[in-house]
Amino acid sequence: MSELFNRHKPLLEKAIDACDKRYSWTAFPESPSSKIHGTEIPAAAKTQFAELLGKPFPIKMPGMISTVGEEVSPFTEKALGITYPTVDIEVLFESAKKARVNWGRTSIEERVGICLEMLHRLGQPESLFLNADATVHTAGQSFIMAFAGCGANALDRGMEALAYAYKAMSDVPVTARWERRFGAAPETRLEKRYRLVPRGTAIVVTCATFPQWNGYPAIMASLATGNPVIIKPHPKTTLPVALFVRTMREVLEVSGHDPNLVTMVADTCEKPATIELLQHRETAIIDFTGGPVFGRWIEENCHNALVYTETAGCNSVVIESTDDLAGMCAAIAHSLCQASAQMCTSVQNIFVPRDGIETNEGYASFDQVCNRLVSAVDQLLESPKQAAYLCGTLVDGKIYKAIDEIATANSGSVIRESGSYKHPEYRNARTATPLVLKVDAEERLLYGQEHFGPISFVIASDNADHALQRATQDVREHGAITSHVYSTDNSFIERAENAYHAAGASLACNLVGMPINFAAAYSDFHVTGLNPAGNACLADLAFVTSRFRIVQTKFPAGNQVA
Amino acid sequence: MSELFNRHKPLLEKAIDACDKRYSWTAFPESPSSKIHGTEIPAAAKTQFAELLGKPFPIKMPGMISTVGEEVSPFTEKALGITYPTVDIEVLFESAKKARVNWGRTSIEERVGICLEMLHRLGQPESLFLNADATVHTAGQSFIMAFAGCGANALDRGMEALAYAYKAMSDVPVTARWERRFGAAPETRLEKRYRLVPRGTAIVVTCATFPQWNGYPAIMASLATGNPVIIKPHPKTTLPVALFVRTMREVLEVSGHDPNLVTMVADTCEKPATIELLQHRETAIIDFTGGPVFGRWIEENCHNALVYTETAGCNSVVIESTDDLAGMCAAIAHSLCQASAQMCTSVQNIFVPRDGIETNEGYASFDQVCNRLVSAVDQLLESPKQAAYLCGTLVDGKIYKAIDEIATANSGSVIRESGSYKHPEYRNARTATPLVLKVDAEERLLYGQEHFGPISFVIASDNADHALQRATQDVREHGAITSHVYSTDNSFIERAENAYHAAGASLACNLVGMPINFAAAYSDFHVTGLNPAGNACLADLAFVTSRFRIVQTKFPAGNQVA
Repeated sequence: MSELFNRHKPLLEKAIDACDKRYSWTAFPESPSSKIHGTEIPAAAKTQFAELLGKPFPIKMPGMISTVGEEVSPFTEKALGITYPTVDIEVLFESAKKARVNWGRTSIEERVGICLEMLHRLGQPESLFLNADATVHTAGQSFIMAFAGCGANALDRGMEALAYAYKAMSDVPVTARWERRFGAAPETRLEKRYRLVPRGTAIVVTCATFPQWNGYPAIMASLATGNPVIIKPHPKTTLPVALFVRTMREVLEVSGHDPNLVTMVADTCEKPATIELLQHRETAIIDFTGGPVFGRWIEENCHNALVYTETAGCNSVVIESTDDLAGMCAAIAHSLCQASAQMCTSVQNIFVPRDGIETNEGYASFDQVCNRLVSAVDQLLESPKQAAYLCGTLVDGKIYKAIDEIATANSGSVIRESGSYKHPEYRNARTATPLVLKVDAEERLLYGQEHFGPISFVIASDNADHALQRATQDVREHGAITSHVYSTDNSFIERAENAYHAAGASLACNLVGMPINFAAAYSDFHVTGLNPAGNACLADLAFVTSRFRIVQTKFPAGNQVA
Repeated sequence: MSELFNRHKPLLEKAIDACDKRYSWTAFPESPSSKIHGTEIPAAAKTQFAELLGKPFPIKMPGMISTVGEEVSPFTEKALGITYPTVDIEVLFESAKKARVNWGRTSIEERVGICLEMLHRLGQPESLFLNADATVHTAGQSFIMAFAGCGANALDRGMEALAYAYKAMSDVPVTARWERRFGAAPETRLEKRYRLVPRGTAIVVTCATFPQWNGYPAIMASLATGNPVIIKPHPKTTLPVALFVRTMREVLEVSGHDPNLVTMVADTCEKPATIELLQHRETAIIDFTGGPVFGRWIEENCHNALVYTETAGCNSVVIESTDDLAGMCAAIAHSLCQASAQMCTSVQNIFVPRDGIETNEGYASFDQVCNRLVSAVDQLLESPKQAAYLCGTLVDGKIYKAIDEIATANSGSVIRESGSYKHPEYRNARTATPLVLKVDAEERLLYGQEHFGPISFVIASDNADHALQRATQDVREHGAITSHVYSTDNSFIERAENAYHAAGASLACNLVGMPINFAAAYSDFHVTGLNPAGNACLADLAFVTSRFRIVQTKFPAGNQVA
């Protein structure tokens, strides 16, 4: 039995229970508060982070050739100056292939125990603070988001996937006894043993904004089921990946396993290594997070491998009526601001009947709803500290251009201009507040596609059912990861639920008083796989069951077989 | 709660337990003995079968256009004269699409209950005897094989897939309560509900030889998870499919469900409807059993759907030594004869070291092993009654031509000629006994491909490890569904196990005194999915988990949502 497995077993059991009952739970600290962690650990992390700057990241990779590094802090606009190894991809795949022989034969408990230890170490405050600093200065998130969203929340998603992998593997017994008679012959007595065989080398492509949130579950799902994992981070957000890859390799090494079970390929935006990795003859599994165009391309072209994608879509809100106008507007405004609307769960399209809606404050016209939404955004951003906390920065300066282009081309429709907020700490911070446009439901060419970043539309529909029809059409054509409805009319909510579900989308109803972008590990099935925003759930049984196969050996009982 | 589910629940629970522990169990009678069933039921089935001949099969299909029927009994060489509806495929898909709306929303228990009732009815003696008669005179199996292999054994495979489907669906709870605090805000309390959404219309392509054995699991897996199923039987073996389709439609209809959840498309060998069905825009799932060439084509071209295949390969035996020469030869000979080696588990390539082997009867030279194998075949076929019982007939007269061609082109290598055995009951029966050739391991062009029917090779290898290398190379390149090794040397067995597993094949060691072709439901994982003989297990969790997806709705607790 694996010592690590036994040590962390209570955690795994709790995770399995949480997945089964889908209540709220986290295995890791979400708050960076000094009341919990003191001040030494955060300060030490800052020192460690500073020491990483301007030099090669201390990590070795098989087949190292040279180094690259093009990360720029969205807060300081300064290059981090950290470089990472580029590798000979053939050598890397060979090393993964070599590593997988023993790993594939290692017991489930040993493999899961090592994965649990990885999550455990990554969940230690020392690691969480350093991870947060690294995420801030690459993905551009606010510190609190980087600490929780890319820390505990992401680790929980990893733990969740690990729990499913363990469930799926445990479903296959190790041995069996089989006895029956065939006709008049003496009873046949067989012993059987079953071996799980990993699929092969897995590629995990992480995105620039949230590399851990999708990366951890993909890595856990593939690694626990016996597959070596090669991670291809975004060139803009490599440091957080390099940090967790280093930790994972350390855990493998100290446990006596081949560290090349987890490797990383650094590249540049100009010369990406992604397609070469995805289409390599040894690639058996692909997990991709990123833009929908490339995601779709992978789904349509990488038939050499199992493909799991999580991309993006046109997330919508349909407003029919509300008994909490202020709460609703605040909730939607929060989604428009949070992480500068660069989350896969950020709202983009807000449908409101052109004749207005009933509210707890009486009738509100379309324009009044627009005004209230804009005011709610303004209110959230009033204090620069709060704005910084909520919005963080833009991961990519190009988003400014996208904002400008849409605002300029549709200047008559702009009801809230995007601007910079003054970051209290970093005067060069790449900040942007939400651009909001008021458009007609007919203008589908404008709103009926993903606009990455703080760009949103309040869309005048003929009525709420018309809004539903348009919003769910967008789901079918462009995908959605989250969808919201606000209504006091249960029959409308029922129609909305049926319409969104029929379009392959999940639905949140009347959420107020919480960050509505929040997708809860162990509870929310993330991507439905029924619309173009991706095919992978993160996590359910389908996310893990095909990452391994089963072979067996049978022999007469008592016939000693090695 | 579903009444049918409650009625059959003990059976389902037993099936789940059998899958978990993988012991021997059957839910259905395997023996057609009159001691069990009396004589009236078999006689009534024969009458029913006779009444079906020469007229349109009594079944209605949506979009009926005309009728076709080209079945010929391999026992009488007479056309059955039964015709089946051809359909307008667009109308058929429309009817399936319509049927799936309610079916997808029907509770898991109701759906599984109905599937259980289908298996239950198909497992009644009345149904089993008629099914056996129909299988005899289409697939050409002996009655006993048709009764057990295409009756109980096939129903057990269906039950097994149903058990996995139920396990996978039950893994997702119906509702959950979720409570947590975000920062200083009041506690958020949400209720969530989860809905399983079927993938869409499923196509099941059945083969000419064993339409039920692969058909039932595919149908159960898709139907239980909410997908309508369109079955495309082989034009030579349509009657057994038409019979079970009729029963399944009856069960749906009497339970108040749309019978068009299970439909059938008849076609002809000259003008098959298969590709049109597989590539239809509505097709979401494909289960295919048949030849490896078409199976591979589907895997490579039908990316519109989830694809599950079970085809064929080069099943091998590697003989290193034995402590039961007679038992081993009898076991291998049984495989060469059973169902005229038209089973996906039939042995084709028998590797023997050219310098002979050690046995319990002393040293046996290569030629002596050849002789013993041939004698064992001859002995099994000595009595025409036994030959008929064991071999049945050829499903397709073209197999004669294949046998002749190989025998003529390699006349010097023939160590056992194929001939007809005299069927005690049907003088026109299309019978053929095993053709056995003696070849060198170098002659891979000859033995290194699937030869469908009673054609096998005893292959002289340099030694047992060389045999292993060649046999597992064939697995990698051409696939395998079963593989056998005979050896008294545990270290060799260990090498064999590792070599076959590494090639993606399961292994049976030293099986004697039982039909070695037998693949046991609930115990043997059938196709590994790791070699070219198919990608589907029938059944494991991976066989079912992707046939549905999950959508959810979340809303504030207490906020009544329809």
